[in-house]
Amino acid sequence: MSRETGHSLAAQVDRLGRAQVARRERPVLREARITLSHGSGGKASRNLIDGLIAPALGMEDALTQVDSVILPVTTGRIAFTTDTYVVSPLFFPGGDIGSLAVHGTINDLAMTGARPLALSLGFILEEGLEVEVLRRVLASIAAASAAAGVRIQTGDTKVVPRGKADALFINTSGVGLVAEHLTLSPAGAVPGDRVLLSGSVGEHGIAVMLAREALEIEADIRSDSAALHGLAAAVLEAAPGTRCLKDPTRGGVATSLNEIARAAGTGIAIEEERIRVLPEVRGACEILGLDPLHIANEGKLLAIVPPEQAAAALAAMRAHPLGRDAAIIGEVLDQPGDMVVLRTEAGGSRVLDMLVGDPLPRIC
Amino acid sequence: MSRETGHSLAAQVDRLGRAQVARRERPVLREARITLSHGSGGKASRNLIDGLIAPALGMEDALTQVDSVILPVTTGRIAFTTDTYVVSPLFFPGGDIGSLAVHGTINDLAMTGARPLALSLGFILEEGLEVEVLRRVLASIAAASAAAGVRIQTGDTKVVPRGKADALFINTSGVGLVAEHLTLSPAGAVPGDRVLLSGSVGEHGIAVMLAREALEIEADIRSDSAALHGLAAAVLEAAPGTRCLKDPTRGGVATSLNEIARAAGTGIAIEEERIRVLPEVRGACEILGLDPLHIANEGKLLAIVPPEQAAAALAAMRAHPLGRDAAIIGEVLDQPGDMVVLRTEAGGSRVLDMLVGDPLPRIC
Repeated sequence: MSRETGHSLAAQVDRLGRAQVARRERPVLREARITLSHGSGGKASRNLIDGLIAPALGMEDALTQVDSVILPVTTGRIAFTTDTYVVSPLFFPGGDIGSLAVHGTINDLAMTGARPLALSLGFILEEGLEVEVLRRVLASIAAASAAAGVRIQTGDTKVVPRGKADALFINTSGVGLVAEHLTLSPAGAVPGDRVLLSGSVGEHGIAVMLAREALEIEADIRSDSAALHGLAAAVLEAAPGTRCLKDPTRGGVATSLNEIARAAGTGIAIEEERIRVLPEVRGACEILGLDPLHIANEGKLLAIVPPEQAAAALAAMRAHPLGRDAAIIGEVLDQPGDMVVLRTEAGGSRVLDMLVGDPLPRIC
Repeated sequence: MSRETGHSLAAQVDRLGRAQVARRERPVLREARITLSHGSGGKASRNLIDGLIAPALGMEDALTQVDSVILPVTTGRIAFTTDTYVVSPLFFPGGDIGSLAVHGTINDLAMTGARPLALSLGFILEEGLEVEVLRRVLASIAAASAAAGVRIQTGDTKVVPRGKADALFINTSGVGLVAEHLTLSPAGAVPGDRVLLSGSVGEHGIAVMLAREALEIEADIRSDSAALHGLAAAVLEAAPGTRCLKDPTRGGVATSLNEIARAAGTGIAIEEERIRVLPEVRGACEILGLDPLHIANEGKLLAIVPPEQAAAALAAMRAHPLGRDAAIIGEVLDQPGDMVVLRTEAGGSRVLDMLVGDPLPRIC
């Protein structure tokens, strides 16, 4: 079933078809009003998207599971993605809304295996915003864009009256070029595949939360916000059979793994002891009653890789500055039910669910 | 100098270079705070974009004058654009924020001569928004997208707390395929070229304003919001030498013509009597003290066409449902100073400036 057999594309299409049929009934949006949970990236978000937005637009809900779309263009194929950033506060340790908007959209492209070509930049600015704030954000955008080697190529700016926005919001969309042979998809995971994670979890969400709230917690936690296209390319070169890549942003690693399990119609088991959590992050999570696996990351990569290429993928990650702490954290199980199980250090196990509700709104 | 001589591309590049050199010094953003005028699409917007945003990003300001960017993709070329919609109210005669977001971004692509391939959809939703409102907007997006034959292919949804947005905002970005030979550019206008306009002006801005304000004006004015890619393609087929296309949105026909004159380093003269204004729009403008040439349109096309192809372009426009009232409204002058002159019906003439300030905020 691996890509190397020469039957990879047909096999993947077949798996996609079966995942489609096996998928549970379409979720229903029951609420009459939008709540903060609808923007969480977790279950309520899925209800909103698959229960309302996708059907209203005639989109397959499989389409809403991936952040970028691949378009046939004459002989090439382009990836095209969009993301809006409403993070609060605008500035936080390790980043700001500007660098985040560059990294996040590059990462959405990178998860399709695309080489990012260009970004767009759409601002909504609140009347009364200090120009100095905008200037700082722009400088950060420029720096992040230059460091990543991906330029802002088109843009748009709107201003709304005071009180009709919160300082500034950013949309970045992006296009990228996809190599001819690549067909990464969460539905492509098959039993036996290994789950790789490029580093420690939870820094971004906790860094933003600590910057926002007047909490008693004193901890030096910086966002991990970073552009992942270089790391993704290294993994794909080392492990060309890679099934899918995923950046565990809103909803964290737990939500991303649940999305993969659901798309593939398989189970996933991960080992708690293999997942690195910085002590400061673990401490903050304990005080706040949060699971680090539900916290957003902005510079981490999950990869689902066939077992025979897992060692090569791991070595490629560890050789990259953004993947030094990479680990094989688990594997895809031959088990229906789309369940993600966490095997604890104590020897027990528990079901790892998607994020429910939104303990950390506006972290991106 | 026309495209038919076989030297078109070289000539255009040359003209672009000269326009670059001839351009006035970069505008300076003097304000310490963002005002509503910075979102007007007029002079203050240019000061913000060319005085702050473009230099902060290392963009040539020529790049900020066009709404889409053309990217080389293996053998093909794609156009890529973004636009954010914050129109208030959300619903108005002739359209709503959803149809507008589809039409506006398709039109940005169409102005490059591209065939639109795909749109993205990024929502910012305010906590407490009635789902029914979102449902209506989505239905409108779906209808506009289906009618235009351009699908929403990727999206993103964020929710912000009550009071941090105004019901909902939309970003749509788009990609399109550009025919190999096309190099439309406002800098491509040369003296003698004719200026074509596809129909009457001012309906969109006035329709939105009347829907928003509790004014004493009773008038049945509907937005002209429409997707222009079909009309644009018809013009380009009939007049392959077309220099540039432009949809006169924020800032109106006057601002668009000034942008073309500035990019090309030429003057433009237009005849007032050739410009169609519906009596209801004229009446509303007189009461409000506004010039219809400064009012936003969302379904009109300006085309700069070499004189020998102007009749064919006009016929093609008139044969299209969206161009029935098309007219040749003026011509490009061999006159430095980048000035747009309006020759009045009374036989006089006056300088037609870009929009200054923003009498109609949030019309798109």
